[in-house]
Amino acid sequence: MFKHTRKLQYNAKPDRPDPLMARRLQESLGGQWGEVTGMMSYLSQGWASTGDEKYKDLLLATGTEEMAHVEMISTMIAYLLEGAPMHATEEEMRKDPALAAVIGGMDPEHAIVHGMTAGLNNPNGAAWNAGYTTSSGNLVADMRFNVVRESEARLQVSRLYYMTEDKGVRDMLRFLLARETQHQLQFIKAQEELEEKYGVIVPGDMKDIEHQEFSHVLMDFSDGGGAKAFEGQTAKDGEKFTYQADPEAMGGLPKNKPADKRLHNNQG
Amino acid sequence: MFKHTRKLQYNAKPDRPDPLMARRLQESLGGQWGEVTGMMSYLSQGWASTGDEKYKDLLLATGTEEMAHVEMISTMIAYLLEGAPMHATEEEMRKDPALAAVIGGMDPEHAIVHGMTAGLNNPNGAAWNAGYTTSSGNLVADMRFNVVRESEARLQVSRLYYMTEDKGVRDMLRFLLARETQHQLQFIKAQEELEEKYGVIVPGDMKDIEHQEFSHVLMDFSDGGGAKAFEGQTAKDGEKFTYQADPEAMGGLPKNKPADKRLHNNQG
Amino acid sequence: MFKHTRKLQYNAKPDRPDPLMARRLQESLGGQWGEVTGMMSYLSQGWASTGDEKYKDLLLATGTEEMAHVEMISTMIAYLLEGAPMHATEEEMRKDPALAAVIGGMDPEHAIVHGMTAGLNNPNGAAWNAGYTTSSGNLVADMRFNVVRESEARLQVSRLYYMTEDKGVRDMLRFLLARETQHQLQFIKAQEELEEKYGVIVPGDMKDIEHQEFSHVLMDFSDGGGAKAFEGQTAKDGEKFTYQADPEAMGGLPKNKPADKRLHNNQG
Amino acid sequence: MFKHTRKLQYNAKPDRPDPLMARRLQESLGGQWGEVTGMMSYLSQGWASTGDEKYKDLLLATGTEEMAHVEMISTMIAYLLEGAPMHATEEEMRKDPALAAVIGGMDPEHAIVHGMTAGLNNPNGAAWNAGYTTSSGNLVADMRFNVVRESEARLQVSRLYYMTEDKGVRDMLRFLLARETQHQLQFIKAQEELEEKYGVIVPGDMKDIEHQEFSHVLMDFSDGGGAKAFEGQTAKDGEKFTYQADPEAMGGLPKNKPADKRLHNNQG
Amino acid sequence: MFKHTRKLQYNAKPDRPDPLMARRLQESLGGQWGEVTGMMSYLSQGWASTGDEKYKDLLLATGTEEMAHVEMISTMIAYLLEGAPMHATEEEMRKDPALAAVIGGMDPEHAIVHGMTAGLNNPNGAAWNAGYTTSSGNLVADMRFNVVRESEARLQVSRLYYMTEDKGVRDMLRFLLARETQHQLQFIKAQEELEEKYGVIVPGDMKDIEHQEFSHVLMDFSDGGGAKAFEGQTAKDGEKFTYQADPEAMGGLPKNKPADKRLHNNQG
Amino acid sequence: MFKHTRKLQYNAKPDRPDPLMARRLQESLGGQWGEVTGMMSYLSQGWASTGDEKYKDLLLATGTEEMAHVEMISTMIAYLLEGAPMHATEEEMRKDPALAAVIGGMDPEHAIVHGMTAGLNNPNGAAWNAGYTTSSGNLVADMRFNVVRESEARLQVSRLYYMTEDKGVRDMLRFLLARETQHQLQFIKAQEELEEKYGVIVPGDMKDIEHQEFSHVLMDFSDGGGAKAFEGQTAKDGEKFTYQADPEAMGGLPKNKPADKRLHNNQG
Repeated sequence: MFKHTRKLQYNAKPDRPDPLMARRLQESLGGQWGEVTGMMSYLSQGWASTGDEKYKDLLLATGTEEMAHVEMISTMIAYLLEGAPMHATEEEMRKDPALAAVIGGMDPEHAIVHGMTAGLNNPNGAAWNAGYTTSSGNLVADMRFNVVRESEARLQVSRLYYMTEDKGVRDMLRFLLARETQHQLQFIKAQEELEEKYGVIVPGDMKDIEHQEFSHVLMDFSDGGGAKAFEGQTAKDGEKFTYQADPEAMGGLPKNKPADKRLHNNQG
Repeated sequence: MFKHTRKLQYNAKPDRPDPLMARRLQESLGGQWGEVTGMMSYLSQGWASTGDEKYKDLLLATGTEEMAHVEMISTMIAYLLEGAPMHATEEEMRKDPALAAVIGGMDPEHAIVHGMTAGLNNPNGAAWNAGYTTSSGNLVADMRFNVVRESEARLQVSRLYYMTEDKGVRDMLRFLLARETQHQLQFIKAQEELEEKYGVIVPGDMKDIEHQEFSHVLMDFSDGGGAKAFEGQTAKDGEKFTYQADPEAMGGLPKNKPADKRLHNNQG
Repeated sequence: MFKHTRKLQYNAKPDRPDPLMARRLQESLGGQWGEVTGMMSYLSQGWASTGDEKYKDLLLATGTEEMAHVEMISTMIAYLLEGAPMHATEEEMRKDPALAAVIGGMDPEHAIVHGMTAGLNNPNGAAWNAGYTTSSGNLVADMRFNVVRESEARLQVSRLYYMTEDKGVRDMLRFLLARETQHQLQFIKAQEELEEKYGVIVPGDMKDIEHQEFSHVLMDFSDGGGAKAFEGQTAKDGEKFTYQADPEAMGGLPKNKPADKRLHNNQG
Repeated sequence: MFKHTRKLQYNAKPDRPDPLMARRLQESLGGQWGEVTGMMSYLSQGWASTGDEKYKDLLLATGTEEMAHVEMISTMIAYLLEGAPMHATEEEMRKDPALAAVIGGMDPEHAIVHGMTAGLNNPNGAAWNAGYTTSSGNLVADMRFNVVRESEARLQVSRLYYMTEDKGVRDMLRFLLARETQHQLQFIKAQEELEEKYGVIVPGDMKDIEHQEFSHVLMDFSDGGGAKAFEGQTAKDGEKFTYQADPEAMGGLPKNKPADKRLHNNQG
Repeated sequence: MFKHTRKLQYNAKPDRPDPLMARRLQESLGGQWGEVTGMMSYLSQGWASTGDEKYKDLLLATGTEEMAHVEMISTMIAYLLEGAPMHATEEEMRKDPALAAVIGGMDPEHAIVHGMTAGLNNPNGAAWNAGYTTSSGNLVADMRFNVVRESEARLQVSRLYYMTEDKGVRDMLRFLLARETQHQLQFIKAQEELEEKYGVIVPGDMKDIEHQEFSHVLMDFSDGGGAKAFEGQTAKDGEKFTYQADPEAMGGLPKNKPADKRLHNNQG
Repeated sequence: MFKHTRKLQYNAKPDRPDPLMARRLQESLGGQWGEVTGMMSYLSQGWASTGDEKYKDLLLATGTEEMAHVEMISTMIAYLLEGAPMHATEEEMRKDPALAAVIGGMDPEHAIVHGMTAGLNNPNGAAWNAGYTTSSGNLVADMRFNVVRESEARLQVSRLYYMTEDKGVRDMLRFLLARETQHQLQFIKAQEELEEKYGVIVPGDMKDIEHQEFSHVLMDFSDGGGAKAFEGQTAKDGEKFTYQADPEAMGGLPKNKPADKRLHNNQG
């Protein structure tokens, strides 16, 4: 169960409106690796967890924090849209190329659909969808996913940082950068502990079942040759990589039978 | 540029048809973490790469291999659908509950849309989409993503393994398990080398910009208490985690202004 | 069954082309609350209806009208795209910022995909999808949905009205505003009649089943305090609201069991 | 900002597992009108609100409560999946038709993707997407949407109630029914207050602009005749409906010009 | 503008309910190649057309007919769902495997979401989306698309025909088969006339611009050898195909430059 | 199984960067009719094929070539994005309208998400999805689809050709135009051969089953009259079209029964 306080986790107020930056920030809100993806993935994983309370609580703690980030970025976007132009005449645009750029580059749905507030989508207006999240029940795999989420998110925030000079926006991004450092590090920590317990390969208990003669061969299906550098190197599980240039097909030709006539496949 | 050989990379022939298993295998073909996701992610990353040939070639080598896996699983699914029932009368189902289960549980689109061959979708018929892939331009982040892709994929193959006793299907899955071991290990290797060069936190050059007072604090927004276990532990970057129970809001109340009257927000 | 006349329901001709306005109007065509949503929702509800002819016919009457609106807006968009630029050189854009804004702000798919005619999508190019529609079989719920459809649609048309000075476009929008007034009013009328018959709460016959001690309590999970204003007020069903600040959890800790080992959840 | 407690808002424990019911409950979690839709709509509206604290707080209070419902249903689904079969042999299914039905009817992704825990999707595996939500900036329109959300959701919970005899599941559904009664009533209350202030038609200030000769005419584009019953009735705004059978086209034939030759429209 | 009559274009009444067949028929309603796709594609093309009235009217005539098919199939699905079970106990399923199959195989959203009426989706519950439609402005290309729409649709109806013995369902399918014969033939006729006028290759006026040395070479990137059979055959435009086995790369190695440091690509 | 060579199939290097053209080219990469659609459709059809090796090999040959096109366009897009601006200040935009147009018109996700490399989406950022592909098992239908794919794709490339003056971009487009000529012609050839064998109507063996009295009637549901021109013309199957103006409904009124009370349809 959750409680909400009206106060924001951190400052989210720009120095001045900027509808182009409002559009860009939608990536951190409703993009593939945005805050909604973090929130819904970590909470789902936390609820799915039946194991060590340490990890379950880590997931719930951070999933709940991401909701505050969703709130901060939504708030910031609305601030950035204050007073944004609804349209401009040709003459107005001719006089002011900066206005023309805003008219050309802002998201028209910010005005038409949301009345100059945030949407749950990325800068191209693609609605957020749960295909961005992961909750598999397997803690090692999911902790790895969480590290990726924080990595891609922090990468995007870093790029966004250089897309504005606004001190207020940058202040918020500096906070998010720090939190995404923490989240990367905590999920790496959890991942490493879990790998120690369950093995570095996910899942850890299928080794005897897999065809082991193919489990440490870098088969090179491209001709660049650079991948040969991995040959002989030691993998994380202690075994060595072999390298196979130009691998051969081992499987023969498929010979599927024609389908039932009532399927009308016209295939022989 | 690519060349194709009609021979499969490995065996992909079941002992006997099984339309329910055909449906389940669609996860490894067109699901979020299926082979198409691997193929399109690694190739995109390879084409985007401007750096060390070692990693560019690794990505292209493996992306090309995944295409062979897409082919193998497509072939297997068509084999598993050979002779599958198009429908059954109530009487037939009453006599044979196993037939009834097949009618109930197989994907009706396998027959209606694909004439008993594979579709590019998951077992619930959701079309594969590129929102499953990642190609960010940043090698550390993307290698981490690739490790996740191989982890979630191998996890799913492991589960699929226990959903059939068919020796032919299991033979193919044993091969895929092994390849996903190799792919996990090679991407982990690449990730670790790149982390050594660019730093463990993605991206590695924003430390001076982030608000560092918040970059090693586990803020616990949930009340389970288990996450306190991270307090004082050493993070991957050598610094120590602090722990903050019940964190306070630092950001004050948002005070967005009412919008332009022509937006009709009816808000004050 | 339907018949079509080539004549439009109302005027749909702008004074002059305006590719930016063409893009914006896509919201009323293929956006979440656009005319396609109205048409497909009302027709589906009409076909699903087994009850009073009055409501079935109202739904079919209006669903069929919406198709004429889809046609009018499609026609208007094509007019607005007449002679739109396919591209411009840097020099041309440098000379004419209004041209630059058009190049920057028009939908490139209007040219590339549709040859300067309308698409079935919103201004950000998101394809219309049936997840925007509702047809539940329950008339009260669906009439309420229809009122929302007309409300959000009219709101958007009102905003679009202030995004152009073109008399022809505004003439069409004035017509649509009026029709959406009628449609709001007629669906409100139907809704109120149906509420009188079936109860104000949807569905009306589950009162004895629900846990009534929780059915008139405003539980306040946020700390703003403003919601306390509802305390003691009379609800539409005649009962009074109580107000609960800072509600407590009543449900205990979940204790799900670890899953079957063959699912490889690594969770205890 | 949010805080989470590990305790559930209410009981969410079934008497016994039931993988078919687990699948059905996905509708209330990740379906079009499920709890995620409520949570994300109300919170977005609350954050977008710049007006009366009463409504802003109502939205934030209820959006936060919905998160607890997401948590309860996720928990319940995981309980219902405990010990669910991963597959069954033909012989086993032949012996036990109930097992066969489970194999046929459960969601295979519950096992393959989520390790027998909940997904953020509906019973057909369609990922939840933000196209289900609404946050327009206009309070009257959005309150109406919220009433619909609670109506459709309560309707679905009512149907789900009759799809199980499990006392634990029914206990949770009885609680949700009550909360959705409260939420319907509170949003109706807010809607009515706002209508009084801003007018019953959304938006309230475009009356002078619309073509009023078309704003109270029920144009009947279908031939059933039932809709004539509205003729002469008084609309919510006090005016009377007129009725037009077999309405005529008023707009003439569209005459769009052929496109630029470089678009290759072949429409000469 | 459109008018609707309550009468159906043709009979749409089954002999008896069959929820499994109801689910299957959703393909012809809301699937990729279903009637909604036909209706929305042909109408959009008709509205976009600026050329010969013959083709514009053909498109509008047929688009309007498809709406009647949407109506017929929606009606049929509701009939087939009459009295369908909402669920069954284990004991009931154990006694009646046919009931078990229905419970397992019917679409649970038919009950939960639509109250036993049709949805705008395919049998796997995927919402219809406008990415299934085409309206390019080019008549030759779009007529070809329309031929495909009718071909795939008639193929699916043919398969559906063999999935039931119900005389009422088959009667409707026999009608649809005939209409799809007509539609295939009329669009083929239009296509051939237009090809005669504008050329067999779409678009017809780019021949002098393309690199003609590559326009009649079957480059064989696969090793099966079967495609060699096209060598020397005469193409539709009168020229002959040449055949190139094992084609060489002509384009050299790509050498993209590393990106701006502020993008943090970590790539050299 | 596939092999990859680092060399491109053909030149893919622009004379100079152009981020607006980069965005436009995304249509040919990840749009509805782009190269990914070709590649995934032809390969799927090839793998599904059980018939004549000639067609199976044709499909695999061309599907594999399309992958080289995906690679070329991805490479070109990255070249076109070299040095693209991440943002610009108002002052900079005011000084340089061409820069303003770029800021307004480029895809912000090229920078934020992909670090100035290609994405698997169309110019509006819609992720590619497998609903764009077709693989039905029926060769005639699918060859027709392939002709459409090449027609729409070549149409779009022709439009893109006139959206740039860059010689390098145009060189690549000239190559693609030629290949799409070849692919149109080869698929037309295959289609015609298959039609000769299996009949011009898909599928060819349902004639005796369909209601033939409706299979050659152009029913005109629109009032333009232009479609009458088809009357008496000879269809591809040798029979003549008849023409029916203003067709009558043959199906009577639907009379679906009210649903089970537990569905709460309120329609009784």
